[in-house]
Amino acid sequence: MNRKEFRDLASPTEAREAINSLSIEGGVERVPLEDARGRVLIARLDAELDVPGFDRASLDGYALNARDTFGSDEADPAELDVVGTVHAGEEPGVVLESGQAAEISTGAVMPDGADAMVPVERTDVGSGTGEAGTTGRHDENDESGEDHESNGTVLVRTSVAPGDNVMFAGADVAAGERALGPGTRITPRDIGLLSALGIDEVPVRRKPRVGIVSTGDELVRPGGDLESARGEIYDVNSYTIAAGVEDAGGEAVLYPHAGDEQDEMERILREAAAECDLVLSSGSTSASAVDVIYRVIEEQGELLLHGVSVKPGKPMLVGRLDSSAYVGLPGYPVSAMMVFRTFVAPSIREAAGLPEPESATVTGRMARDERYGEGRLRLMPVGLVTDGDGNSNSDSNGGGADSGVDAGVGVSAGDTLVYPVDKGSGATTSLAEADGVVEVGPETDYLERGESVDVQLFSPDVRPPTLLGVGEDDPTLNRVLDRLDNPRYLSVGSRPGLRRLREGIPDVAVVAGPSGREQELEATELSSWERDWGLIVRAGNPDEIDGLDDLVDRDLQFVNRTSDSGLRTSLERALADLVEERGAETETGAKTDHHDLATHINGFDVGLRAHESPARRVIAGEADAALGLRDTAERLSLEYVPLGTQTMRVLANPDRVEKASVRELESVLAEGVVDDGRL
Amino acid sequence: MNRKEFRDLASPTEAREAINSLSIEGGVERVPLEDARGRVLIARLDAELDVPGFDRASLDGYALNARDTFGSDEADPAELDVVGTVHAGEEPGVVLESGQAAEISTGAVMPDGADAMVPVERTDVGSGTGEAGTTGRHDENDESGEDHESNGTVLVRTSVAPGDNVMFAGADVAAGERALGPGTRITPRDIGLLSALGIDEVPVRRKPRVGIVSTGDELVRPGGDLESARGEIYDVNSYTIAAGVEDAGGEAVLYPHAGDEQDEMERILREAAAECDLVLSSGSTSASAVDVIYRVIEEQGELLLHGVSVKPGKPMLVGRLDSSAYVGLPGYPVSAMMVFRTFVAPSIREAAGLPEPESATVTGRMARDERYGEGRLRLMPVGLVTDGDGNSNSDSNGGGADSGVDAGVGVSAGDTLVYPVDKGSGATTSLAEADGVVEVGPETDYLERGESVDVQLFSPDVRPPTLLGVGEDDPTLNRVLDRLDNPRYLSVGSRPGLRRLREGIPDVAVVAGPSGREQELEATELSSWERDWGLIVRAGNPDEIDGLDDLVDRDLQFVNRTSDSGLRTSLERALADLVEERGAETETGAKTDHHDLATHINGFDVGLRAHESPARRVIAGEADAALGLRDTAERLSLEYVPLGTQTMRVLANPDRVEKASVRELESVLAEGVVDDGRL
Repeated sequence: MNRKEFRDLASPTEAREAINSLSIEGGVERVPLEDARGRVLIARLDAELDVPGFDRASLDGYALNARDTFGSDEADPAELDVVGTVHAGEEPGVVLESGQAAEISTGAVMPDGADAMVPVERTDVGSGTGEAGTTGRHDENDESGEDHESNGTVLVRTSVAPGDNVMFAGADVAAGERALGPGTRITPRDIGLLSALGIDEVPVRRKPRVGIVSTGDELVRPGGDLESARGEIYDVNSYTIAAGVEDAGGEAVLYPHAGDEQDEMERILREAAAECDLVLSSGSTSASAVDVIYRVIEEQGELLLHGVSVKPGKPMLVGRLDSSAYVGLPGYPVSAMMVFRTFVAPSIREAAGLPEPESATVTGRMARDERYGEGRLRLMPVGLVTDGDGNSNSDSNGGGADSGVDAGVGVSAGDTLVYPVDKGSGATTSLAEADGVVEVGPETDYLERGESVDVQLFSPDVRPPTLLGVGEDDPTLNRVLDRLDNPRYLSVGSRPGLRRLREGIPDVAVVAGPSGREQELEATELSSWERDWGLIVRAGNPDEIDGLDDLVDRDLQFVNRTSDSGLRTSLERALADLVEERGAETETGAKTDHHDLATHINGFDVGLRAHESPARRVIAGEADAALGLRDTAERLSLEYVPLGTQTMRVLANPDRVEKASVRELESVLAEGVVDDGRL
Repeated sequence: MNRKEFRDLASPTEAREAINSLSIEGGVERVPLEDARGRVLIARLDAELDVPGFDRASLDGYALNARDTFGSDEADPAELDVVGTVHAGEEPGVVLESGQAAEISTGAVMPDGADAMVPVERTDVGSGTGEAGTTGRHDENDESGEDHESNGTVLVRTSVAPGDNVMFAGADVAAGERALGPGTRITPRDIGLLSALGIDEVPVRRKPRVGIVSTGDELVRPGGDLESARGEIYDVNSYTIAAGVEDAGGEAVLYPHAGDEQDEMERILREAAAECDLVLSSGSTSASAVDVIYRVIEEQGELLLHGVSVKPGKPMLVGRLDSSAYVGLPGYPVSAMMVFRTFVAPSIREAAGLPEPESATVTGRMARDERYGEGRLRLMPVGLVTDGDGNSNSDSNGGGADSGVDAGVGVSAGDTLVYPVDKGSGATTSLAEADGVVEVGPETDYLERGESVDVQLFSPDVRPPTLLGVGEDDPTLNRVLDRLDNPRYLSVGSRPGLRRLREGIPDVAVVAGPSGREQELEATELSSWERDWGLIVRAGNPDEIDGLDDLVDRDLQFVNRTSDSGLRTSLERALADLVEERGAETETGAKTDHHDLATHINGFDVGLRAHESPARRVIAGEADAALGLRDTAERLSLEYVPLGTQTMRVLANPDRVEKASVRELESVLAEGVVDDGRL
């Protein structure tokens, strides 16, 4: 079979209908009461008994005949014979006759012959036929459990009506009453009702079982050893989709990941189909794997749909496999999650009996122009940042709306800026940097900066970050960020950070190295500190590397940073200094050229993006020296050869200097940097 | 020690401060990735590796040197020698030189010497040194895994720049980068990031362990046998508070319930204190139990506060017991839950590292006057119902607010009416009939009908009922209700139902028996049906009871319903008929009196509230005949002696006839009642 071309793409609506047509309900199960919270009742529960099951005293006091108190008041109390005591949890050993009362505890059974009770506060011990020793208002510490034929008298200083201070049997819940209806999602309050009815097991919808099969020879489960040289990567989809399934009310079942070998893949898919209500596969983008899935679905089930007009997520499959529903998700994690969220999660929720989620929606303005013209529905992951002073940003109870409904999300004052998050189709992590999704219709090919868009937050409890920072990656900065409440920091490097600050999106940019074009920005410098940089070499410095000279003159393998990095800029300056120095040393007219020196350094042109990655090449034995920070060398137990210090500066977006989170950052920076120069 | 009088009540603020001063943090634990969803990260996680770990092809196509494509286009393609194939999960077995390309799969490692790739769609198989058989665009089904020294040539019909269609090592996440900050509540998207980093175990805040000790001799765990005659009741607080603890992010530990015996209570409290971060007791209201708790807390810990100026919840204790925090909750379930929710849950959430909950707040109008003048903060449980046509009631995504934030709750259009829910202080189930809480300040002693109040929903996912019905309890009605989405029905009886309808609160009232004063209401009758009623007697009717005559003339024990019940009204009419009949029979001038006949029926004056409760007395052997429905007799396998039929009528609030849920009810009633008279 040849590569499927997805020529006839289904519309998103058709895809939803196809998935809805699959039955993924899980049936019924009975769960113990302690596990019932959040589960969905499948049938009505009627009360099988009265609550309370008996006429019950509501207070501590005296059970009596209301008739005997008629006309009584403070001045003219009724005096009744106390003929017994009833504690909670005891059968009354007394029957009252006219003129008699029984001491009674809150919750105790009203004795026969009594039709009301008087709280102890409205009584006094009488002077009647009292026995010696019963001088207190009532005998609290009586542990004998015996009923007293004569316990003195009580003075009742109020009149009561029949039923006063008594909760009659069934007054709380009456036998036969409808207690909870089918479809109830059980709350702690419902558990209270079920407890009162003595129900210790409830029939609930079984969570739909969703089997997850990630395919691809290159996948390794997290925790396993990765061979990057072989192109292995960690399996992102399995645990991520499992978590999504559980968020949607399903039960996730992870199957061992299937390589691209056909028999194995078929075996695992069919095993999952036999055990689950829905099978989700994902992970392999190789055509041969797709072919296996096609063949299995077509032979053992039915393919309802392949290819949907949506981006990301075009290569989606919907069908049946043996007795299970089947959806094939795209392999790229971002695509897989977006398709899962848009098309699959709603069906799982429905099968689980959960209501449509409260979709928290935030309206914001596009932070920049965004072009898109592919004629497919686009599910665009976006991040949010509050513009302006954002004073109310830390107030999670946003302004109440006229509709009377307000679930406070941390973006409620100031203008909300919306920026697309897109690290490319192969990125696994973009969604962790996004807050929600903007659906861009197929007819829209351009979103203009400032245009209003609706963002569906990933879930109602998403808290958009309080602070958005961009720029250089730095260990000191990381410690600062740890002290802030819910910041987001994108380590894009110094130059891209400055560029984004210029576009007005982030709150702050953190730049390394000599100051330069940021002056044009009129950005406000919040703080600065020095950091030591140099060469990172093997522990003990076995190659006896002392500085840049060694890299130029000896046959050593070096690892550089990318040109976006502030360290790279500092390195190039150091190299320029070396050129000067050597020019002076050689004392000839022919100046040593900067470029010339760089070409003598093996690996100078190979730049890595992350501040730690070069050092890790040294650990891996792939390089002798790496550009890096003293801090990194210490952290990774390597040797540090100093080349210089560079200034780290935190620059604030001029519109945001009064924003609460920016002020918080400023104050943390002030404390830490002043204290010891190292936070 | 004598009864504690709570003379110096603490303010609610002081109570919050006292609880906040207790440390209930649970420390750290490491959980596997699959259990990390929703947990709170306790420390920053930095990336320990680059993602991807290698330069990676983003598409299926050809890896090459960008330089070799410069100037190429559709018309003038570059022709390159294909010298190998790299699949995902394979180490490249080839190094490219100028003029060479390698076939490459999505996700595969870029071979050395290549700096860009071209997607297969922009290429054609060349005519160069191609081998026989390689006529397709590319060799999808090549399973040999061998690298081909010569695989023909490829025509590249586009030019690419270095880096095009390649994801460089670390471009997604760079080693050393801050991945997730402390305090992050882990979402499925974060699990994606952690997976990509190969992390299979994360350090999270341990959930605070909360021990729950219910005390009281009268308590029986749900599922156990209840002896109502002894005043036993099911333990409501244990499971309810446990569910509340788990909702708040804690781990609930239920201890066996402690009776009022002092040594046992002390032993269980101290055992809980040794094992938990916080101990919550509740359940016993007897003074001796309180004394034990006082003594234990004072001897083994510290009592910080007793008594809070709040209703319900006055008798709250706050202190320390051994090394644990301790809070004593009131015994009544409603009070216990209100105090738990207001004072304890926020501290558990904080210890669990969860953000303040998004408090969904609904603004509504008081449905009736409410007096309150005790000078304490009142936590008033309330229910909600939408007034007016409520057309948008079924739309759970209410109108977006200008603030940009909108968590759709089912009350978004029409006016929301707020009515207090209060079944008395001993009621265990009121909260299941409530949607949220109105805090009434100590200075407020009167809330006027129509006054605007803010209701804090019990949780953001509370869905206020779509339909509020009140009135007679009826098995047919229960089946109708099962077919509606999220109705609420309060079985208050026919007369109270009519009274409430007159007050304008419910959407519908269901009344039994002959029509009467409801005519004054101008209520709209939605539907009606007949139900059979009579006497319910033991299976097989061993006493040979044929009708009311037997109850009057023989020594039989009867159980009646309360005078609120429509059945009682029908019974009284039947008795009046019997009087007529007997008057005719005796043919004397002295008419038989109605009251006279009733006094001849043993138990006529003892009315039970629930429609099933009288029949259950027959099962229990406590009565020979009970007033009830044919339906009930059948359900409980008893014998039914017909006395008549009565009309059930569903009456709609005239303002609500167009409300969506009322129309839905009307249509379900129309279907069912017309079909077979029995739904």
